[in-house]
Amino acid sequence: MAVYTRIDSHDLEAFVARFSIGALLSCKGIAEGVENSNFLVKTEAGQFILTLYESRVDPADLPFFLALLDHLHGRGSKVPRFIPDTDGQQIHQLAGRHACLIEFLSGVSVDNPSPAQAEAVGEALGDMHKALTDFTGMRPNTLSLPGWHALFARCAAAELDAIAPGLSDDIGGELAYLDVHWPDMLPRAVIHGDLFPDNVLMLGDRVSGLIDFYFAASEIRAFDLAITHAAWSFSSDGHNYFDPVGGALVAGYHRRLPLTPVEQAALPVLARGATLRFLLTRAYDWINTPADALVMRKDPLAFHRRLQYYRKITGGEVENPFEGPAR
Amino acid sequence: MAVYTRIDSHDLEAFVARFSIGALLSCKGIAEGVENSNFLVKTEAGQFILTLYESRVDPADLPFFLALLDHLHGRGSKVPRFIPDTDGQQIHQLAGRHACLIEFLSGVSVDNPSPAQAEAVGEALGDMHKALTDFTGMRPNTLSLPGWHALFARCAAAELDAIAPGLSDDIGGELAYLDVHWPDMLPRAVIHGDLFPDNVLMLGDRVSGLIDFYFAASEIRAFDLAITHAAWSFSSDGHNYFDPVGGALVAGYHRRLPLTPVEQAALPVLARGATLRFLLTRAYDWINTPADALVMRKDPLAFHRRLQYYRKITGGEVENPFEGPAR
Repeated sequence: MAVYTRIDSHDLEAFVARFSIGALLSCKGIAEGVENSNFLVKTEAGQFILTLYESRVDPADLPFFLALLDHLHGRGSKVPRFIPDTDGQQIHQLAGRHACLIEFLSGVSVDNPSPAQAEAVGEALGDMHKALTDFTGMRPNTLSLPGWHALFARCAAAELDAIAPGLSDDIGGELAYLDVHWPDMLPRAVIHGDLFPDNVLMLGDRVSGLIDFYFAASEIRAFDLAITHAAWSFSSDGHNYFDPVGGALVAGYHRRLPLTPVEQAALPVLARGATLRFLLTRAYDWINTPADALVMRKDPLAFHRRLQYYRKITGGEVENPFEGPAR
Repeated sequence: MAVYTRIDSHDLEAFVARFSIGALLSCKGIAEGVENSNFLVKTEAGQFILTLYESRVDPADLPFFLALLDHLHGRGSKVPRFIPDTDGQQIHQLAGRHACLIEFLSGVSVDNPSPAQAEAVGEALGDMHKALTDFTGMRPNTLSLPGWHALFARCAAAELDAIAPGLSDDIGGELAYLDVHWPDMLPRAVIHGDLFPDNVLMLGDRVSGLIDFYFAASEIRAFDLAITHAAWSFSSDGHNYFDPVGGALVAGYHRRLPLTPVEQAALPVLARGATLRFLLTRAYDWINTPADALVMRKDPLAFHRRLQYYRKITGGEVENPFEGPAR
């Protein structure tokens, strides 16, 4: 949520002049995305997002992201296109960084989503996965089960236990459980991997845009639904699960891209993995971000609470929300 | 340069519905202004700036700022208007804060301004001062000479000297000089007080907007020109003075609102005060902002260098740039 890089006004004008989008009218740094510097650019032709890629995005991955969004856009998914300049180039240099000019999409990120909104998000995710069945791009997922082990190894037990007593052992036990139960044989595809409400633009109950694909990678496809379930169906602190929201999300997905019985049965375990993934990245950031830095540290425990809920499902203590009628 | 406050999407929709501006299409937090949270809002009727007032703006001052901008807008100055809702209200509550919806103005803040751009800014400042000659609103300036003394008293000598050896004594001496030489009898008016390039929107060589009036206050009018001279005529680190830029700025101002000989003669001293004002506020922020906080601390010494340049003028060591032909 920060603008890291300042663009010189003369460099910006020269950049805009490479495109067929008329003269520059305005440019405001926007607080969107944690990985990059983003600007809302207005020209005579309309509005655009200008992204400067900071250190956390590997420039070698940009062609993959471009191909992914071009493919999705070609299939009618509501994703932002990368605008080519008059020479057809989509990747540029600006302010010493890789830079892309990206289509602006209307829509607002919702708080406290309704079941109707969750259902629309499930449909959009199902449509996106369907559109990707013939996408041939590949990108390894550094945040898969082996990646969680590596991340755990980089967090000292004492520092995890300072977040919550016993957290280190708890995570270690969860990793051991997932090593045994992880459904590695399920169908794979490129997934979004981070489809939180912040990354979905909506107009009322309609999805107007899916954005921020910079965690997209080759993964178990149903894992994307599990991530989205964990992201959308709980109060943000993770204390409360909203079954009508979670149920509508899965139902919407299933309507557009039917889950196989094996995928459906694996969802509780996939959801445990999804919550562990965010618990680990948040815990790592928590430990490595100074408490007085003016950047928002996201609470790792909000995902530990979600993990505990999903554990109750695999343990048979609560009804399995992935196994309802028409889900 | 930060968005401090998150607005719930439902609250935002209800807020937008109070105005005759159609449905909400988009809302992005923007990195503009250091005092408030600002959002770029798009609706069916166009674009707007939504400002939430954080703790550094006193809500009791909002009616003054509103009256000021209404007055200036009525006189044709390119300043953003506060949009009234359907009940005529311009000050609202949102996310627990005072909030205003403000006209969006096109334009880009320039880096390395040309003389032609500086001349246009001087003209816009002169026009603005002329438009304010019959404005009756008043607001005391907390950042005037007595305010600098108070700020200096709140900075420990050792902490100032840690920024640069001898800085504390240097500032003390400058305050003593200004106590004797400050031209208190000069004409007063409401001034902008912070007309840095960041607060001027330009399209090419044309000024399309003057923004961010939250330092506006009753002051010596020519002090505003001195601040603007210090803000526009130097490299940002303060090492280099660009005489063609500074000269064009003063010439543009003088063409629209002629300076009296007494005002003109006072400009070097006013400029010393202007640089001291920013040196002090930046030094205070420097001392009171943790070094590892992800907020940009602005270098106080960039204004200490400017101060040293203006001292050479009052000392007769360099030519007085405020006394050129047609200036």
